[in-house]
Amino acid sequence: MTYISSRSNDNIKLFRKLSEQRKERTEKKLFTLEGVRLVADAAAENAEFHSIFATEGCLEKYSGALSPVLDNFGGRLFVITEEIADYIAETRDSQGIFAICKIPDEKPLSDIISRGGKYIMLSDVRDPGNMGTIIRTADAVGTDAVICCGCCDIYNPKVTRSAMGSLMRMTIAVTDEDSAFSAFKAADITTFAAVVDSSAEKLTECDFTQGAAVLIGNEGNGLSAETADKCDVKMTIPMKGRANSLNAAMAAGIILWELSK
Amino acid sequence: MTYISSRSNDNIKLFRKLSEQRKERTEKKLFTLEGVRLVADAAAENAEFHSIFATEGCLEKYSGALSPVLDNFGGRLFVITEEIADYIAETRDSQGIFAICKIPDEKPLSDIISRGGKYIMLSDVRDPGNMGTIIRTADAVGTDAVICCGCCDIYNPKVTRSAMGSLMRMTIAVTDEDSAFSAFKAADITTFAAVVDSSAEKLTECDFTQGAAVLIGNEGNGLSAETADKCDVKMTIPMKGRANSLNAAMAAGIILWELSK
Repeated sequence: MTYISSRSNDNIKLFRKLSEQRKERTEKKLFTLEGVRLVADAAAENAEFHSIFATEGCLEKYSGALSPVLDNFGGRLFVITEEIADYIAETRDSQGIFAICKIPDEKPLSDIISRGGKYIMLSDVRDPGNMGTIIRTADAVGTDAVICCGCCDIYNPKVTRSAMGSLMRMTIAVTDEDSAFSAFKAADITTFAAVVDSSAEKLTECDFTQGAAVLIGNEGNGLSAETADKCDVKMTIPMKGRANSLNAAMAAGIILWELSK
Repeated sequence: MTYISSRSNDNIKLFRKLSEQRKERTEKKLFTLEGVRLVADAAAENAEFHSIFATEGCLEKYSGALSPVLDNFGGRLFVITEEIADYIAETRDSQGIFAICKIPDEKPLSDIISRGGKYIMLSDVRDPGNMGTIIRTADAVGTDAVICCGCCDIYNPKVTRSAMGSLMRMTIAVTDEDSAFSAFKAADITTFAAVVDSSAEKLTECDFTQGAAVLIGNEGNGLSAETADKCDVKMTIPMKGRANSLNAAMAAGIILWELSK
C-alpha cells in the first residue's frame, strides 16, 4: 500500500487523463471506474485491474463489499486522502474508491456474430448516458452482443456509470459499418433498420426468431438514409399516443425487449 | 413589449424562484419552460401563458417556429438581454426563450380513471429525469393517465425538459395512494405491482385487456412492501440476462409498452 496526498502524483495524473480523454484510454488501453459497486462488479467479472485508489474511510466503511476485490488483490493499491478523492471524483458521491482497469482485447467480429443470434448495432450514438443505458438493457434482456459503429467511447466514465456492471459482462464490439454488415451477412442474420416511419414494418410484426440485428441511429437524426437502405427490413415502433417520439434509449430498450423475447 | 436588462427585475426574480422552488410553483400555480420547442409545444397544447421572455436574437432566429406562439399572444412579452438569458437559463443551449405558464387545474380522479383504462401509478419516484422520461413514454405508447403519489414535482424544470411536450398533453394526477386505490377499485381496474421477484407473475403473461394500473416504485428501493401488498397482482419483468436490473425509467417504459399494446 502506498499513500498519495499530492495532485501531482503520476498515478493521480494518469487517472485524470484516462477519465477525461478518449485518446489517452485508447493509447494506454486503460479506463477508469468509480464507486464501490462498479469496482466490485468489475472484480466479479474478472476485470484486470491496473490499480485501485481508496480513502481510508472508504476501506473501513465498505470493507464487507470490498473484501472480494481486495482480499487477493495482486495489483497496486493506493490509499488516497479525501482531498485527492474529491479531486479525481466525477460524481458527488464517489464513496472514495476508484480503479484503473485494462481494456480487454476485442474478439474478432466473426467470433461474436453467429447464426441465430440477437444483436443491436448502434450507429453514431453520441450520448454516453444513452449508450450506457442501452448496454445495461441489452444485458438485462439477454441480447447477444452490442455492435458500436462511430459512437461515443464505450469507456467514457459516463458510459461505465450508466451501464453499471454491464459494460464488463456484455459482449461489445467497436467496428465500422461495412465490417458489421459483412459479419451479419456471413452469419445469415437479418438486419432491421429502426426508423420513424409509419409505413415501415411494425416492430410487433417482425420475426426475430431466426436471428436478427437491429440498427439504432443517432439521437437527433436517427439512422442515415444510406445506412437504413443497407438493411434488409425497415422497422418502426408503432405509436398510439401523441408524442413525436420516444427518447433514443427508450426506443432502443423497447426494441431490445421485443428482439430478445 | 417591455425590455428587461436587470437581474433585479421582479419578473426575472419570479422566473428564478419558480424554476428553483417547488413551494413557489405550488403557491403561485405557475411553472417555467425553456427553449423553442417546449414553448411552441405548450402553445400548441393551449397552455395558458403568464409571460414569455426572449432575446432579440432568438425572436429573429426562430421567428418561424415562434410565430404560432407570438402572433396572437395576449400575455406579457419581455425582451431580455443575452446576459439575463444566461442568468435564468438552466441548460447550456437555452436558445434565449423562456416562459412562465399557469399550472392547469386538476381534474378529479373519478373523471380521470374509468373502466377499461390503462394507467401507470408512480410511487415515490424521485428523479425528475426519470419522471419526465416516463411521462413522455406514457404519452408515446398511449397510456391513459399517469398517477403520481409522493413523487418529485412534475413541474420541476428537469421534468418538463425530459418529458418534452408530453407534460402538457398527458393526463397527470397528483394524489395520495389511498385515493388512487379507491378510484381504481371504483372503476374495476386491476392493480399490478411491478416488483423484482422471479416468483411474481411475468409481465408477458399478465392480462391487461380489461383495464389495468401498473404501480412503479422508487428508483433505489422499488415499491414498499405495504404498497405492493395492496395490489391485486405482483408482476415482474422476466430477465434473461445477467444484469441485476433495468434502470427505473427503462423498466417503466417496457411495462408501459406491454400495458398499452
